[in-house]
Amino acid sequence: MKLYDADWAPSPRRVRMFLAEKGVEIDREKIDLAAGAHLGAAYLAVNPRGTVPALLLDDGTLIDESSAICRYIESLHPDPCLFGRTAREIALVEAWTRRIDDEGYGAATFAFRNRNRHMIDRGLPGNWPPIAQIPELVDRGRTMWACFVAALEARLAGRDWIAIDAYSYADLTALVAVDFARATKLDTGDLPPALAAWHARASARPSAGA
Amino acid sequence: MKLYDADWAPSPRRVRMFLAEKGVEIDREKIDLAAGAHLGAAYLAVNPRGTVPALLLDDGTLIDESSAICRYIESLHPDPCLFGRTAREIALVEAWTRRIDDEGYGAATFAFRNRNRHMIDRGLPGNWPPIAQIPELVDRGRTMWACFVAALEARLAGRDWIAIDAYSYADLTALVAVDFARATKLDTGDLPPALAAWHARASARPSAGA
Repeated sequence: MKLYDADWAPSPRRVRMFLAEKGVEIDREKIDLAAGAHLGAAYLAVNPRGTVPALLLDDGTLIDESSAICRYIESLHPDPCLFGRTAREIALVEAWTRRIDDEGYGAATFAFRNRNRHMIDRGLPGNWPPIAQIPELVDRGRTMWACFVAALEARLAGRDWIAIDAYSYADLTALVAVDFARATKLDTGDLPPALAAWHARASARPSAGA
Repeated sequence: MKLYDADWAPSPRRVRMFLAEKGVEIDREKIDLAAGAHLGAAYLAVNPRGTVPALLLDDGTLIDESSAICRYIESLHPDPCLFGRTAREIALVEAWTRRIDDEGYGAATFAFRNRNRHMIDRGLPGNWPPIAQIPELVDRGRTMWACFVAALEARLAGRDWIAIDAYSYADLTALVAVDFARATKLDTGDLPPALAAWHARASARPSAGA
């Protein structure tokens, strides 16, 4: 088993954090995104999508999406449980994770890919034909981010964690999204109080440094 | 338990198809999207996001996202299994489902919400501040859709189903995406051969009519 990993980018960090929460180590190869190695022939022969992370299983199957890699790890190493135990927990973790991906991570990606001069014609991540930047998506991303922050703030009133009573994949996903939004300057770092307290709690876990 | 459902829209269909595959029935209330009932006070009091479907559990918990509702049902009714049994199957179903959602359903949603005169200022589904239409997203959606169709065609060479050897949640999700793309006129209905054969297979299941 081999994990294709990359520095800085949010989706590889998601998998590294998940592995750290599980205490699991996997052989890793780093792909240099800044040098465009994810779109070079060598990596495209492994993963034609040109996305990182990807997990190559021993039977040759490639798992080319971060949530899928995390679910694979969860199946092999169920404790600590990060996707919920009961039907209700499983549903809440999934609902919040999807919302965080669509609204929070989605907003940050709109802002990052549609105004950055290194992202010209790379409006989508990975191996696509040229996808022109759309500057209006930066504004849409700002509106989405403001609403997303307000929704998390409301959810966290009186709660330690977002989806269920324990730390879950939703919190991990949200930490990656919030830190990515800050890195792309979509977020100023001035979070409202309940979200700021949650951010400090999540960031204090050793996995946050992975 | 009560399911908030709606005609025509893709996400409610996804849950109805899932229930049909499982042979499970749940009390349903229809929300009239065309009349804007999802953004009316009565429904927003149930689901502040203003999205349909939503599943209200007996303890008052609301599950407000279609994949989360399906995972809830899968937990309670594991057979037939639609999210995969082994770690490898679980990962492949998740990876393909996410890709179908991001690239296929995402493309159709870009096309639907950014050129339809009924969608002015409703660039995102549900209860948001006004989100202006961005006509360039229709073109981006067209490029995404063409690449997505090519990727599914390549995947289906010599296979009956998309993610694993059996029909799974990925196939269900893809059928909803393909039919939605056709309804929004993003897709002409002229699918390449392996995808067309898959579409006929998936459409022949009783669940497709749900």
